[in-house]
Amino acid sequence: MRTPLCDTLGIEHPVFGFTPSEHVAAAISRAGGLGVLGCVRFNDAADLDRALTWMDENTDGRPYGVDIVMPATVPTEGTSFDLDKLIPQGHRDFVQRTLQKLGVPPLPADEESGAGVLGWLHSVARSHVDVALEHPIRLIANALGSPPDDVIRRVHEHGVPVAALAGKSEHASRHVDNGVDIVVAQGYEAGGHTGEVASMVLVPEVVDAVGERVPVLAAGGIGSGRQMAAALALGASGAWMGSYWLTTAEYALMGQSTATQRALLAAGSSDTVRTRIYTGKPARLLKTRWTEAWAEADAPAPLPMPLQNLLVSEAHQRITLSDDPGVVSMPVGQVVGRMNDVRPVAEVMATLLREADEAIDRLGKLR
Amino acid sequence: MRTPLCDTLGIEHPVFGFTPSEHVAAAISRAGGLGVLGCVRFNDAADLDRALTWMDENTDGRPYGVDIVMPATVPTEGTSFDLDKLIPQGHRDFVQRTLQKLGVPPLPADEESGAGVLGWLHSVARSHVDVALEHPIRLIANALGSPPDDVIRRVHEHGVPVAALAGKSEHASRHVDNGVDIVVAQGYEAGGHTGEVASMVLVPEVVDAVGERVPVLAAGGIGSGRQMAAALALGASGAWMGSYWLTTAEYALMGQSTATQRALLAAGSSDTVRTRIYTGKPARLLKTRWTEAWAEADAPAPLPMPLQNLLVSEAHQRITLSDDPGVVSMPVGQVVGRMNDVRPVAEVMATLLREADEAIDRLGKLR
Repeated sequence: MRTPLCDTLGIEHPVFGFTPSEHVAAAISRAGGLGVLGCVRFNDAADLDRALTWMDENTDGRPYGVDIVMPATVPTEGTSFDLDKLIPQGHRDFVQRTLQKLGVPPLPADEESGAGVLGWLHSVARSHVDVALEHPIRLIANALGSPPDDVIRRVHEHGVPVAALAGKSEHASRHVDNGVDIVVAQGYEAGGHTGEVASMVLVPEVVDAVGERVPVLAAGGIGSGRQMAAALALGASGAWMGSYWLTTAEYALMGQSTATQRALLAAGSSDTVRTRIYTGKPARLLKTRWTEAWAEADAPAPLPMPLQNLLVSEAHQRITLSDDPGVVSMPVGQVVGRMNDVRPVAEVMATLLREADEAIDRLGKLR
Repeated sequence: MRTPLCDTLGIEHPVFGFTPSEHVAAAISRAGGLGVLGCVRFNDAADLDRALTWMDENTDGRPYGVDIVMPATVPTEGTSFDLDKLIPQGHRDFVQRTLQKLGVPPLPADEESGAGVLGWLHSVARSHVDVALEHPIRLIANALGSPPDDVIRRVHEHGVPVAALAGKSEHASRHVDNGVDIVVAQGYEAGGHTGEVASMVLVPEVVDAVGERVPVLAAGGIGSGRQMAAALALGASGAWMGSYWLTTAEYALMGQSTATQRALLAAGSSDTVRTRIYTGKPARLLKTRWTEAWAEADAPAPLPMPLQNLLVSEAHQRITLSDDPGVVSMPVGQVVGRMNDVRPVAEVMATLLREADEAIDRLGKLR
């Protein structure tokens, strides 16, 4: 299965795999898709540099890309010390109270409290771009829309196309006006930051708005060949998948808590919620006792990005160490209902492509 | 374009058109789909009988169906006089205050206050079934899931299949266990009563759950041939469409306010909201100043079905007479963003089928 975008990027199949794991990203690229490494978790650009160097050595020369998180409007900047002062005590108290109620133990005495995710800061995201451009990347995607003009220009000077996620067709048009080369139309059902319009409606609308100017990828709800064929039927030039790799064998190499994997494998399609508690912007997470606590009447309104993620960063550490599937804090899409076993990326990809072929064959026989 | 279900029901194309208008339903059947007349607005079964008699005379002998609204659990019964006593004064005051704030005039002195929609009552829905079975209907669909056992048995004794809407795969399985013959998997993006799982995820999940036992139709977000092809790619045996007929030329014959049509034509895909203010159960409506007033901090929680619809029934009358597109109260799906002109049903159907064919051709060439 090929679309013209495959030739542009030098990939075999129009499958774009977003993942925070270099092991998964490399495996996707080796399997003929485009592995896209999420950079947001790399507070230190040197760590990203090491991960990309590892990918250079483990992708058999196949193309890969990176994903940064750069809000269109520059959010509050500062060191985590400065930012900490902007977090109200009432919010801190709620987090402490909730963790206690949920039975999440404090950090062990020998465990250092982490700095939280700083990739939401413009300065950190810019350092990701700098590092990425020193590697043979074939795509930079921005999870929050168009990056600033100067970033787009610099990336283009390196001959690398820029992709941007869009949850509304107006946003997609603006991204293309700004110089973005590929639009990822991400529907309501997607994991992580997401809008309100579902893929079935959003994808053809974005294709109608910008499809004559740039290729459009469909994101949200894709985890089977039927869904991939549906995305292509809607006019997409490929499938952008994030959640579906979270239960692959390679993802487990990230060494996250096994509780997360167990929670994902057990969840159904109704077990997610779209909430601002992870980053300050609406994002779809697995529904657990942690997300439900924030939906109760006594919960404070989440803080704006990047403060909310700093507020909950130690909570995330404690939740991870607690190893309790009932309280994990994890972005994932509604396709989690289809994530029921642990398989290697190559097998996931082969099944996806075979099923998509079968779906297209079946459609051809309906006439 | 045909699926095996077309042969079962004696239709040419797997397009199921739900509509409250007998003019639209008949036109859909004449165009080769299955027109499905929504019964909920008929408080008096004799009016439904007249509408179905008209359809018998205006469908050129083509098959058609009806749609009833029968909750799985029997809600509060009673005359509208009894029910009125269950509505708190605070709710009535909020409605009056809001209409005044929105500039919606009171009913003119010569206009009688209507009884509201009583089709949500089990007794009234049963009268719809009685009347419908006296006509040559080919399908009874229930918008709220499985009808009671005895209703399914009676309908089957007449050789008529029963369809039921489902927003979760567990519900779909239960419907089929109860004897339902066709499941309509209705995604989050759909208009009217709807669940939280989007079509892209829900449709293949329902097909996996019950597809070996019964055909599954896809509902939610379908208003173009690409979307119809996507629904078929996801494994559906046909497309169930409701919203998309609301701006047809035939729908205008219902004599609703022109404000509704103007509001629908102007709305984008982001201009809807899922709320309980229409019936007491979550339903997607056009987002207007009326729905926004109910989302404000001072608004009361909506009442359970059937009280909420009785509470707002006079408000709906007043809103209709005000002829102001900014305040209409209208169920519609996110596909409203694609409803931008007024066309006859036959033309809508022809475009849909041609585009679906084109989409399938395009997919076939991706290998």
